[in-house]
Amino acid sequence: MKVQPLGDRVLVKPLEAKETTKGGIVIPDTAKEKPQEGEIIAVGEGRKTDDGKVIALSVKKGDKVLYGKYSGTEINVEGDEHLIIREEDILAIIK
Amino acid sequence: MKVQPLGDRVLVKPLEAKETTKGGIVIPDTAKEKPQEGEIIAVGEGRKTDDGKVIALSVKKGDKVLYGKYSGTEINVEGDEHLIIREEDILAIIK
Amino acid sequence: MKVQPLGDRVLVKPLEAKETTKGGIVIPDTAKEKPQEGEIIAVGEGRKTDDGKVIALSVKKGDKVLYGKYSGTEINVEGDEHLIIREEDILAIIK
Amino acid sequence: MKVQPLGDRVLVKPLEAKETTKGGIVIPDTAKEKPQEGEIIAVGEGRKTDDGKVIALSVKKGDKVLYGKYSGTEINVEGDEHLIIREEDILAIIK
Amino acid sequence: MKVQPLGDRVLVKPLEAKETTKGGIVIPDTAKEKPQEGEIIAVGEGRKTDDGKVIALSVKKGDKVLYGKYSGTEINVEGDEHLIIREEDILAIIK
Amino acid sequence: MKVQPLGDRVLVKPLEAKETTKGGIVIPDTAKEKPQEGEIIAVGEGRKTDDGKVIALSVKKGDKVLYGKYSGTEINVEGDEHLIIREEDILAIIK
Amino acid sequence: MKVQPLGDRVLVKPLEAKETTKGGIVIPDTAKEKPQEGEIIAVGEGRKTDDGKVIALSVKKGDKVLYGKYSGTEINVEGDEHLIIREEDILAIIK
Repeated sequence: MKVQPLGDRVLVKPLEAKETTKGGIVIPDTAKEKPQEGEIIAVGEGRKTDDGKVIALSVKKGDKVLYGKYSGTEINVEGDEHLIIREEDILAIIK
Repeated sequence: MKVQPLGDRVLVKPLEAKETTKGGIVIPDTAKEKPQEGEIIAVGEGRKTDDGKVIALSVKKGDKVLYGKYSGTEINVEGDEHLIIREEDILAIIK
Repeated sequence: MKVQPLGDRVLVKPLEAKETTKGGIVIPDTAKEKPQEGEIIAVGEGRKTDDGKVIALSVKKGDKVLYGKYSGTEINVEGDEHLIIREEDILAIIK
Repeated sequence: MKVQPLGDRVLVKPLEAKETTKGGIVIPDTAKEKPQEGEIIAVGEGRKTDDGKVIALSVKKGDKVLYGKYSGTEINVEGDEHLIIREEDILAIIK
Repeated sequence: MKVQPLGDRVLVKPLEAKETTKGGIVIPDTAKEKPQEGEIIAVGEGRKTDDGKVIALSVKKGDKVLYGKYSGTEINVEGDEHLIIREEDILAIIK
Repeated sequence: MKVQPLGDRVLVKPLEAKETTKGGIVIPDTAKEKPQEGEIIAVGEGRKTDDGKVIALSVKKGDKVLYGKYSGTEINVEGDEHLIIREEDILAIIK
Repeated sequence: MKVQPLGDRVLVKPLEAKETTKGGIVIPDTAKEKPQEGEIIAVGEGRKTDDGKVIALSVKKGDKVLYGKYSGTEINVEGDEHLIIREEDILAIIK
């Protein structure tokens, strides 16, 4: 079974939110929107333009990404919690 | 009798919402928007651009799709409940 | 006397709303927006683009269509109730 | 003295609102937006596009038109009440 | 001293609002937005498009125009009250 | 030290608001938005279009301009109060 | 570890907010939105257009920039507070 996101959406498996991490990304506990870390499991084909072209996504399967905490739609795939997010809502790639 | 959706709309027959499913998609019971599963029965011709071109849809008859629970307009075709949804509101294809 | 809709508008004569219909379209009595059935009496020339082109409508005179219950503007033509609706608000053609 | 509407605007002289009319347009007395009938007195040159072209209007002087009751801006020309309306707000031509 | 409006703006000197006028424009005293009459003192160069072109204005210095009462920004030039208005907010030219 | 505005923004040094001025601009004390006078200190490179072109600004260093009182963002450069404003919010050049 | 912003976003390391500074930028303590100073650590590839082109950013790694106080999303990279901001929200470069 496979979930194939449509258009400019990606399927993301969230990583465990760590409060602090050595040499890594710390999600501060403030009133601001907190980004979360996840791994991209599948990407859509891209956004279709009015010229009939498809603008491919800038992220690919396996990328670790930061995204806004309240972005996307939660789904469970084979028991694990996943998110379907638009590429627009992905903030950065973590390398 | 046949319902032919217009433009970038599709006709979807919702699947029974299963609370849990082995090796499948589980719709969590949270406060977030819950996607639903359905099968595409008919698709529109596509979105017309200002150049007079028609951008065909990315989904086709028979595709199983995930869509937002509150998307689309309910209609009944020959006694069965269906939905007319814009392609924009379809999250992913399930394979 | 004739009413010629402008641009991407169509003139629709609503069909009687049937609560149930055998082998037909049943409009469910729910809290969701209920589509209604009607027949297209006249169509506009189409939407003008910035290139000066006219994108013709996808529906034509005689088509039976589904549209949202609260779409369009009511007018009476020679004693019969009609609607002027934008093509955008037509959900599907019934064949 | 002459009022020349600008761009995609037209100058309309409203007809007397008749409650019923034989073989004509009847404006129903419902809660929905009620269209009104008028005659076009003058039209603007058209809408300018980013290419510097001018898209001429689809209506011309002398056309009888239906428009939304609350559309446009009221002005009086030589003692008679007129309206300046955008072409966008004209629903249909009556022939 | 000279005020040169920018882009698609014009500098307008309002005429005295006359309640009634013989053979002229009468501003009705209703709840609707009331247009006002003024004379154009200076016009901007025009609107710049994404192609780097400039779409010149349809009005010129000396034109008498109608505009919405609450349009634009009031400034005083050498003691006289003026308005800076976008061309978009000018309804018609009075000839 | 130099502040270089980005894109279609300009750096403006506000002039002292004079209540009345002989042969100049008088800012009226009304409920309407009051424009203010300032001198342009630096301009951005211009607005980038989708074609990769840059549309240069219509104002240049040294221009005296009118702008809305509540436009822009206040910053202090070397002790003096300045504003960073989008070109869009500049009403006119004073010559 | 590296955070690579996506699209038209940049990663900014905020400078200490100094209340006053000799020969520098003073952030006034008013009710207006206060800009803040920071250094750009990494920039996205740029904004993708419908033509498939990428419009590179106007700022680069090492630039000192002013941005609105409430812009962007806070993240911590290796213990230091950073911001991911859209280029659109950067007001000026400080040289």
